Amino acid sequence: MLQTELRTHTCGELTLKDLGQQVVLCGWVQRSRDLGGMTFIDLRDRYGITQLAFNMETHKEQCIKARQVGREFVIRTIGKVTERSNKNTKLPTGEIEIVVDTLEILNTALTPPFTIEDHTDGGDELRMKYRYLDIRRNPVREALQLRHKLAMETRSYLDKQKFLEVETPVLIKSTPEGARDFVVPSRMNPGEFYALPQSPQTFKQLLMIGGFDRYFQIVKCFRDEDLRADRQPEFTQIDCEMSFVERKDILDMFEGLIRHLFKTVKGIDLPSLPHMTYAKAMKLYGCDKPDTRFEMTFVELNSTVKGKGFKVFDDAGLIIGICAKGCGEYTRKQLDELTEFVKRPQIGATGLVYARYQQDGTIKSSVDKFFNAEELKKWSEVLQAQPGDLMLILAGEPNKTRKAMGELRLEMGNRLGLRNAGTFSCLWVIDFPLLEWNEEAKRWFAMHHPFTSANPEDLHLLEDDPGAVRANAYDMVVNGVEIGGGSIRIHNKETQALMFQRLGFTEEEALEQFGFLLNAFEYGAPPHGGIAFGFDRICSLFGGVESIRDFIAFPKNNKGRDIMIDAPSKISEEQKKELHIILAPI
Amino acid sequence: MLQTELRTHTCGELTLKDLGQQVVLCGWVQRSRDLGGMTFIDLRDRYGITQLAFNMETHKEQCIKARQVGREFVIRTIGKVTERSNKNTKLPTGEIEIVVDTLEILNTALTPPFTIEDHTDGGDELRMKYRYLDIRRNPVREALQLRHKLAMETRSYLDKQKFLEVETPVLIKSTPEGARDFVVPSRMNPGEFYALPQSPQTFKQLLMIGGFDRYFQIVKCFRDEDLRADRQPEFTQIDCEMSFVERKDILDMFEGLIRHLFKTVKGIDLPSLPHMTYAKAMKLYGCDKPDTRFEMTFVELNSTVKGKGFKVFDDAGLIIGICAKGCGEYTRKQLDELTEFVKRPQIGATGLVYARYQQDGTIKSSVDKFFNAEELKKWSEVLQAQPGDLMLILAGEPNKTRKAMGELRLEMGNRLGLRNAGTFSCLWVIDFPLLEWNEEAKRWFAMHHPFTSANPEDLHLLEDDPGAVRANAYDMVVNGVEIGGGSIRIHNKETQALMFQRLGFTEEEALEQFGFLLNAFEYGAPPHGGIAFGFDRICSLFGGVESIRDFIAFPKNNKGRDIMIDAPSKISEEQKKELHIILAPI
Repeated sequence: MLQTELRTHTCGELTLKDLGQQVVLCGWVQRSRDLGGMTFIDLRDRYGITQLAFNMETHKEQCIKARQVGREFVIRTIGKVTERSNKNTKLPTGEIEIVVDTLEILNTALTPPFTIEDHTDGGDELRMKYRYLDIRRNPVREALQLRHKLAMETRSYLDKQKFLEVETPVLIKSTPEGARDFVVPSRMNPGEFYALPQSPQTFKQLLMIGGFDRYFQIVKCFRDEDLRADRQPEFTQIDCEMSFVERKDILDMFEGLIRHLFKTVKGIDLPSLPHMTYAKAMKLYGCDKPDTRFEMTFVELNSTVKGKGFKVFDDAGLIIGICAKGCGEYTRKQLDELTEFVKRPQIGATGLVYARYQQDGTIKSSVDKFFNAEELKKWSEVLQAQPGDLMLILAGEPNKTRKAMGELRLEMGNRLGLRNAGTFSCLWVIDFPLLEWNEEAKRWFAMHHPFTSANPEDLHLLEDDPGAVRANAYDMVVNGVEIGGGSIRIHNKETQALMFQRLGFTEEEALEQFGFLLNAFEYGAPPHGGIAFGFDRICSLFGGVESIRDFIAFPKNNKGRDIMIDAPSKISEEQKKELHIILAPI
Repeated sequence: MLQTELRTHTCGELTLKDLGQQVVLCGWVQRSRDLGGMTFIDLRDRYGITQLAFNMETHKEQCIKARQVGREFVIRTIGKVTERSNKNTKLPTGEIEIVVDTLEILNTALTPPFTIEDHTDGGDELRMKYRYLDIRRNPVREALQLRHKLAMETRSYLDKQKFLEVETPVLIKSTPEGARDFVVPSRMNPGEFYALPQSPQTFKQLLMIGGFDRYFQIVKCFRDEDLRADRQPEFTQIDCEMSFVERKDILDMFEGLIRHLFKTVKGIDLPSLPHMTYAKAMKLYGCDKPDTRFEMTFVELNSTVKGKGFKVFDDAGLIIGICAKGCGEYTRKQLDELTEFVKRPQIGATGLVYARYQQDGTIKSSVDKFFNAEELKKWSEVLQAQPGDLMLILAGEPNKTRKAMGELRLEMGNRLGLRNAGTFSCLWVIDFPLLEWNEEAKRWFAMHHPFTSANPEDLHLLEDDPGAVRANAYDMVVNGVEIGGGSIRIHNKETQALMFQRLGFTEEEALEQFGFLLNAFEYGAPPHGGIAFGFDRICSLFGGVESIRDFIAFPKNNKGRDIMIDAPSKISEEQKKELHIILAPI
């Protein structure tokens, strides 16, 4: 099928069924071996590796040429498919080789700065500088092939569900709500700037108002943020919106999507997704994106442990315990490691209380001074610990304690091998708070975004107890990672104006920034809602890798630089003049 | 299939087979008619229109409510599918109506500023300001649905041919070659700028060097140009590249694509595409994107008409004639119109010579003073004119004359109804010149781009006669529109360096701007080539409409403004400060 003027086959398809055929192959030299009378070259392309054989006796000239080609040379070769004596059963093409008549060097190659192997000797920066060589390596190529497949299957599913892919503009308007915008000076409109979209949120809502009913787009979005480890200034979303729907419709539709992706891409039949409230997630897992591959859920111990004279517990707003199965015989060193872990500044606990339920039935705790055997026995009952288990307890201010225990739980999951990248546990987290208080700005912020509707049951609280209002919002969480989130939107002007007011916008500001949306609501806006998935994150999840970088063809580094092409870079005075801008003195 | 909590069916699917069913529909009020005892509402959604019937006798309350809803109100309605007495056979749903039990107003609507009908009373600017209402109209919605379908079928074809869709970065590096870049100031790299891509050209070549073999992407590109009628600052390409190919492979592959699109989207079996050289296209049609839906090709008349004392012809570098079939009886007024046409500054001819071959066999020309009946007869033989035909002749400097005659030919095609939007004539134009001389810059420019390879047969001319070197480049032309173009690329460093030199780059400039590509060529670059199609243009071609605007969901106007969201706009002082830029005084 891939036959071209330059080749008849790829390096991944010839097998014993092709014996005797005259073929033309092109590709890169993976390695060559010179065995005196014979020279062998492993020829590589995207599709596989095929062995070329050069015989010094019968094809002296070609054989001598073959001995001169180096790693990563590009060659074209004509020869006959022949059965190998020394078969490699690990390769699809491993039972044949090409006995070469003609060898043509299409291009030479310098020695690559790192090896083109699955496990390379190149560091991150070097690999990024020579990304065009890095993507020759199987793991990177396969990551990008997986991305292609996921995108194709996403489109296939959504197209069948009557979603239309609509391209929304990239040159839009800057809005101060949310993260920082990248902006683009306009030459034709001096002093004015476009912004690159952080998401197509308002456009997809306008498409719903425009009657498009079901929209999606796999789309680049942009955020000018200080880059943490695994953030990129440009990233890709699967962005979706539906009209005439309630929450259940959206959850069903996109549970369908994720199940389709797991089925077609990984051959996994995902069980149906449980719905967990935000409140329950916080209570049982200490975070809104619980890793549900394993249990080890929180048990609140306030009523169990208070009042025994142990000040740390008695003064604490919240005391939480978890039970680590089978860790009852942890050594002093291991327990010290855990204490160190929770005391790290990122975790922020002041200490860790533990109680080892030994195989002989006795319980040894780090607070034996305050709690007797009977009391510790009670702990084990509440925590459902058995002999051989380890009870771990944190105490303090409730939110901080939950957060710290969430981290400790994940650490214990890692130690116990409960967080296997090949196992997938998906769920919906629902009923998020609508608003969160920002102490610095002294105002409420939308937890999701300002277009999210409130749970109708809670609307009466909006005036007096805004923090208690639940949003009609939802996140899809897989293995402790939020891969998508969305909400049922506000679809009338009064409610939207009220929300902007709640968020501290003056009427003027609201009109200036979102006037077009508020106006649009007056011309017959349907009830609608949607979701956006982080596509880079989904790719890395399916690839079983933590970092998203290998799933992006040409990623940027932590300073937002593309070190391969050396961007960003200076521009000419002429360009700046045309754009009506001057550099600020530094 | 589309059942949700809010509706059981869409407005496009209920027919006689559903009689008696209780259904729930949602949508917009297209129109309502009040006939005393009965009120009818046409309910519209993306899928169609369904008639709702309200009976004043049996459902008084609902009927009164129905009389209060205005155009574009959003309603939800429950009722029974019933056979209509007054059937509309033009609508799929025209044989039934819904006898309504319950009517719920989901949202009200102001009267739209223009009618939501196929032929609207809204002007261009008004429609763009309220684009979310404009896209409710069938022609615009259908244009965007067509776009979705074309994108899906493009991906389907290319995926089957083993192309991988790879996303290339949007924040890249500014290069002065080509059109003007949009730039993005970098906050984290003070004084430096990203550029938005005019095309992913270098990245797709790097993907080939990286062994990806077959790449495509449907991708947004950006050009900061003064906008002519039908240009947009952001536009979409189908961008493709293949390794180990020669020209024939690319032409075959993408002939396959266009045939697939015509077949699946329009049900048309396209004949295979002829290949026409650039030289032939210029000679016969006076342009490199000939409209081949009709003949009327150029005939060079120098040897036929010179030397008869008519100074205009005698002084001319080139004299061209065309024969307009059946226009021999054109009136004086019509002929004057044609003369006016060619004298318009955009066309630039100084005058038009014509000769009417009358039905009685005589020939009347505008230059009877200089040419006798016998000579005019000779013209008719050379131009293959018959009684009833009109011969049209232009003379002057060769390039200008070809261009003017090309325009006149298209004008005659229009007048004769030979340019039907439902007829498609596709071809490849090949063998373009590699370089063109720019008189202003006093240097050669790449006609396609600096990465295009030369026809190997012509390489020896590069030093002494650069203008004669043919490029290994090709354009796909449909109905006089270039919808795609590409080339076999240079794939070794020396040739690329030579090309940059020919284009007046110093070695330093070439290295600074394209060093990463030149370096990449040293690590084993395969022979490769590709093509890019203008996707907006393909959509408008398939839609049978000249303008691309309706095929873009949210287009910008001629000043590059989005007048719906009012972008570009001012940004805050804080933003500019963070980006290290100051506005230039105006």
